[in-house]
Amino acid sequence: MKKYCFGIDIGGTSVKMGLFDISGKVLDKWEIPTRTANGGEAILPDIAASALAKLTDMNIPKEEVAGMGIGVPGPINDAGVVPHTANLGWGYKEVTKEMEELTGFPCKGGNDANVAALGEMWKGAAAGRRSGVMVTLGTGVGGGIIINGKILAGTNGAGGEIGHIHVDDTIPGHCGCGNQGCLEQVASANGIVRLAKWMLQDKAEVNTCLDTDIMSAKDIWDAVKAGDEFAVEVAERFGKYLGTALANIASTVDPEVFVIGGGVSRAGQVVLDYIQKYYVKYTFKACRNADFVLASLGNDAGIYGSARLVIEE
Amino acid sequence: MKKYCFGIDIGGTSVKMGLFDISGKVLDKWEIPTRTANGGEAILPDIAASALAKLTDMNIPKEEVAGMGIGVPGPINDAGVVPHTANLGWGYKEVTKEMEELTGFPCKGGNDANVAALGEMWKGAAAGRRSGVMVTLGTGVGGGIIINGKILAGTNGAGGEIGHIHVDDTIPGHCGCGNQGCLEQVASANGIVRLAKWMLQDKAEVNTCLDTDIMSAKDIWDAVKAGDEFAVEVAERFGKYLGTALANIASTVDPEVFVIGGGVSRAGQVVLDYIQKYYVKYTFKACRNADFVLASLGNDAGIYGSARLVIEE
Repeated sequence: MKKYCFGIDIGGTSVKMGLFDISGKVLDKWEIPTRTANGGEAILPDIAASALAKLTDMNIPKEEVAGMGIGVPGPINDAGVVPHTANLGWGYKEVTKEMEELTGFPCKGGNDANVAALGEMWKGAAAGRRSGVMVTLGTGVGGGIIINGKILAGTNGAGGEIGHIHVDDTIPGHCGCGNQGCLEQVASANGIVRLAKWMLQDKAEVNTCLDTDIMSAKDIWDAVKAGDEFAVEVAERFGKYLGTALANIASTVDPEVFVIGGGVSRAGQVVLDYIQKYYVKYTFKACRNADFVLASLGNDAGIYGSARLVIEE
Repeated sequence: MKKYCFGIDIGGTSVKMGLFDISGKVLDKWEIPTRTANGGEAILPDIAASALAKLTDMNIPKEEVAGMGIGVPGPINDAGVVPHTANLGWGYKEVTKEMEELTGFPCKGGNDANVAALGEMWKGAAAGRRSGVMVTLGTGVGGGIIINGKILAGTNGAGGEIGHIHVDDTIPGHCGCGNQGCLEQVASANGIVRLAKWMLQDKAEVNTCLDTDIMSAKDIWDAVKAGDEFAVEVAERFGKYLGTALANIASTVDPEVFVIGGGVSRAGQVVLDYIQKYYVKYTFKACRNADFVLASLGNDAGIYGSARLVIEE
């Protein structure tokens, strides 16, 4: 009888690991370093060794393990194959096949943003919902789309790459993806600061308490909460970009709920308020009542979602 | 043994009906009028009577029928319930339940744009593909999204309502949905004419062979093919709106293929060329190679897709 599963979230510097029972209760969680040297050849063996050691420590027979889900920072297809993941040192890698050989139990893989979305839908802010879109406003803008409880991975593993939705031709500079005018350029933590600096260029005089040379996204949201005139202008513009983009996603996939996570979401409800103001204005009427919630699992969303991969209904 | 199925496409003036074998070969197709009087109470009984009469005519026992798929012009949920469909006269209606009682075989329902997409993915221009987006450029702009062979219907039946993607704050007037700046306002057959007239407002002089008072979408595309300077400008703007919208859909659902149908698509490859020019510019790099094809089933897409609903793998 299968009683346990592992949820793994591989990052560029550390691997988060979780041991769960199959109801989704976390029994233990820990981290190991991500050794990216030599083409990242040690990463999967390190994870396998750590997982098997944990079973021994806890006197759990391997036969009681339903499997291991693995979140990777890059595209991974349904067969568990990664074509290339620069920040792990990997070229072509059959991740789940290798891990099944190393551990002896069934493995499934998913993109890290997608498994985080699955985690929030399973045990986090959107628990009990069937369809949702998670938006992670961090260093970049990530996304994950869950339809009827399953990840929408996409033909090229690019499902939910909503940071690269084109929002405005006039945004200065290029996105990391090479395009111009991506949502990520104005809605990530760095993006909000970039947006504020861009808006400053058109102003002869600015009414703000912000030190505009060294402001962070957190400084801007703190100033919004304090009623700072310029910061509120920036928040409106941010809300219009993101709210319109999510309105257009709704006209495409019509989710029950949007989950907003990542560092920027730590500013709280105020972030949702500015997004929803424009979402409601621009979305198709049938989608107007979609819920907006703040992510609740933080950095653990990935291990929950990965675990879910191997015990899906 | 199940050998046959029905595909039904209910429109505001007529119902298209098809009898198929379960390999998807159409054995017969015909139309009956849509009687919308008295809350559309005759529509389902008329369809059932016509289908059962066809079985009698062709000496097919009811036991050999796998079921009936029904496309309706409005939202319909997974349980086959329509909340309200104005142009059929229906209020709340349990479509598939009623039809199962009338016919005695299993029934499934879908929105007409979505079943048309399923038809093109099954037996039309995108046959053999697993994931695709169909865009119908007709009186309005409709859409249907197929992921792993299944319709993405959405929480409120608004999956694929891509005509209501917000593309530009400055578009004059309102969309039929009540919003401003919808894709449908500039990319449907009427929308292209509206776009051309709007572009004329900013011009002191226009270099065109078009009679700008009475031009149709077809006239504009004919002029594009003849190299007309103004018509080409309109086509570029149309291509930018639609290409950008599809680029953003790709960053969300990452389809293998886009199928372009509806009256406007009869202008042919030139329509795809203007869309793809901007699609390639604005989409996320992993999605750049998505195929663009013209729909091939015409008005039969709906009956094919409806039939597919009851014989899905």
